[in-house]
Amino acid sequence: MPELRKDPITGRWVIIATDRAKRPSDFVRQVVPPPTTAICPFCYGNENKTPPEVLAYRTSGNRDQPGWRVRVVPNKFPVLGIEGELNRQGEGMYDKMNGIGAHEVIIEGPDHDKTLGNMSEKLIEEALWAFKERVNDLKKDRRFRYILLFKNHGDAAGATLEHPHSQLIALPVIPKRVKEEVDAAKIFHDLKERCIYCDIIRHETAAGVRLISETDRFTVLAPYAPRFPFETWILPKRHESHFEDADGSTVANLAWILRATIRKLEKVLEGPAYNFIVHSAPVQEGPLAHYHWHIEIIPRLTNVAGFEWATGFYVNPTPPEESAKFLREAGLG
Amino acid sequence: MPELRKDPITGRWVIIATDRAKRPSDFVRQVVPPPTTAICPFCYGNENKTPPEVLAYRTSGNRDQPGWRVRVVPNKFPVLGIEGELNRQGEGMYDKMNGIGAHEVIIEGPDHDKTLGNMSEKLIEEALWAFKERVNDLKKDRRFRYILLFKNHGDAAGATLEHPHSQLIALPVIPKRVKEEVDAAKIFHDLKERCIYCDIIRHETAAGVRLISETDRFTVLAPYAPRFPFETWILPKRHESHFEDADGSTVANLAWILRATIRKLEKVLEGPAYNFIVHSAPVQEGPLAHYHWHIEIIPRLTNVAGFEWATGFYVNPTPPEESAKFLREAGLG
Repeated sequence: MPELRKDPITGRWVIIATDRAKRPSDFVRQVVPPPTTAICPFCYGNENKTPPEVLAYRTSGNRDQPGWRVRVVPNKFPVLGIEGELNRQGEGMYDKMNGIGAHEVIIEGPDHDKTLGNMSEKLIEEALWAFKERVNDLKKDRRFRYILLFKNHGDAAGATLEHPHSQLIALPVIPKRVKEEVDAAKIFHDLKERCIYCDIIRHETAAGVRLISETDRFTVLAPYAPRFPFETWILPKRHESHFEDADGSTVANLAWILRATIRKLEKVLEGPAYNFIVHSAPVQEGPLAHYHWHIEIIPRLTNVAGFEWATGFYVNPTPPEESAKFLREAGLG
Repeated sequence: MPELRKDPITGRWVIIATDRAKRPSDFVRQVVPPPTTAICPFCYGNENKTPPEVLAYRTSGNRDQPGWRVRVVPNKFPVLGIEGELNRQGEGMYDKMNGIGAHEVIIEGPDHDKTLGNMSEKLIEEALWAFKERVNDLKKDRRFRYILLFKNHGDAAGATLEHPHSQLIALPVIPKRVKEEVDAAKIFHDLKERCIYCDIIRHETAAGVRLISETDRFTVLAPYAPRFPFETWILPKRHESHFEDADGSTVANLAWILRATIRKLEKVLEGPAYNFIVHSAPVQEGPLAHYHWHIEIIPRLTNVAGFEWATGFYVNPTPPEESAKFLREAGLG
């Protein structure tokens, strides 16, 4: 009998199709192919193929020259423009505003053929510092209400370039899904005077069946009502609402656990495409007692079809207890 | 300058990337390939390869034999089971229930190689009648709160079989996205004492720029804040909350306009994969003044990536005014 499970935060019901439970080898995977040697705008020597850098950590060289370890540049084809006023207005019965925002690319090292699973921990730590630094800079611009940090790895996950990179989009509105999550966490906090994510960490640590790994500072788990097979969350143990407030040792520990978790997924799923997204509180809010930043990693194994789009109602063929067991037993962290 | 537009019903903001507006030929399309001749469980003579039929409109033959024009069968690999009690229960801090529901397949004619664009109008009308009849039968089962009707056409849209078919899933919960849409329409109605969809039909008919076509009974338009390029809605002009209450001449007219609209999309986008979803009110509710059933058609042209998943925040490279113009000028209806 399949099970209907409710996500405790958003209230979204998910079908966990236990009758047709899938092992990792049952998925038709698009394994991310080895990188090619085509000219890449993110490689050393091609710095002039991107807009001028907004941040770089360098070993040598000058601005927009080789010698950087991590480099942040505006996206050459931004979805939003940085210049101008929001100019909120009505259009007949509708609402619109100018598409003001920032869209940047964080290039995670000079090596074209590395992935988060095999690059140095130090480099991942620096990329996370670049995230933090860019968010803390952009949030000074009061037009921006939310900043998204995400990575698309592999074609099936929407990546158009192979060279390891993440993206940042600063928005003048709080996206609907983010607002729902933050508002729902607030309702829980108003009722219980506890953070629901702190509750989940305690519950899952005690229960163990969905726990993947933990460090001093982080808990890695499969959520109770995952939308996707092998959906994996990384949560800081200490309550904090904003990713960009994480201190130095938290960032260092996150680099370690993020790499270890990606390595587990790469081992069990044989190099899948995936997205990861940093879920963090709206940037113009002070520290929030009810929200708890975390990272969600979604391997792209299944093709999402019509009714999932229409309804936000997901069918997941892999119970989280099984994906957690596979990842736990994969070793590596 | 890209534009941020707000969906008037759900409040979802969408980026319309007008700077990189795309013509139909700019999309890397996965054209749906011509059907193969592999053994198909939905073809005549293979009736024993599906579970026994629950409904059929026949010219000749007996139950589970050839001679049917439209045939409805339970899905052989259902995501929910029809037998049993819901058995709502807590599990630690979480909520779950048994995965009770119905999952059926509507086989739209005996011809393996037809599509909605080239099959007979009469057959589409009969398939729509089968939808109606199945919903009206299943809603007598008070366990079911919502019934989804949808079609996945082509591999990229999640179809696993080529033979023309749609699907029905009856659920014991109202999916979150559906509830949001219905609740938002109710808030509008409480405020204005008008249906927001009726307002949209009037507004778009007068404005014209996003109008694709209309008949006596239906309006076809590109919504103001579409999530996807060439997203297309078909709305009945007369206010009605439940698809399954549509009368005979409405169903006949819908068959005509649905086929004409799919033909337009097939012509302009050269045979794209697509999903269509019937948005209708929860089945245990009586007629609602605030909700208005409609069909949403989503061609699958872009790859949805990380941040869309995370945030419900969509980037659409084609302004609806352009997609409407292409579809209007395609003729055929």
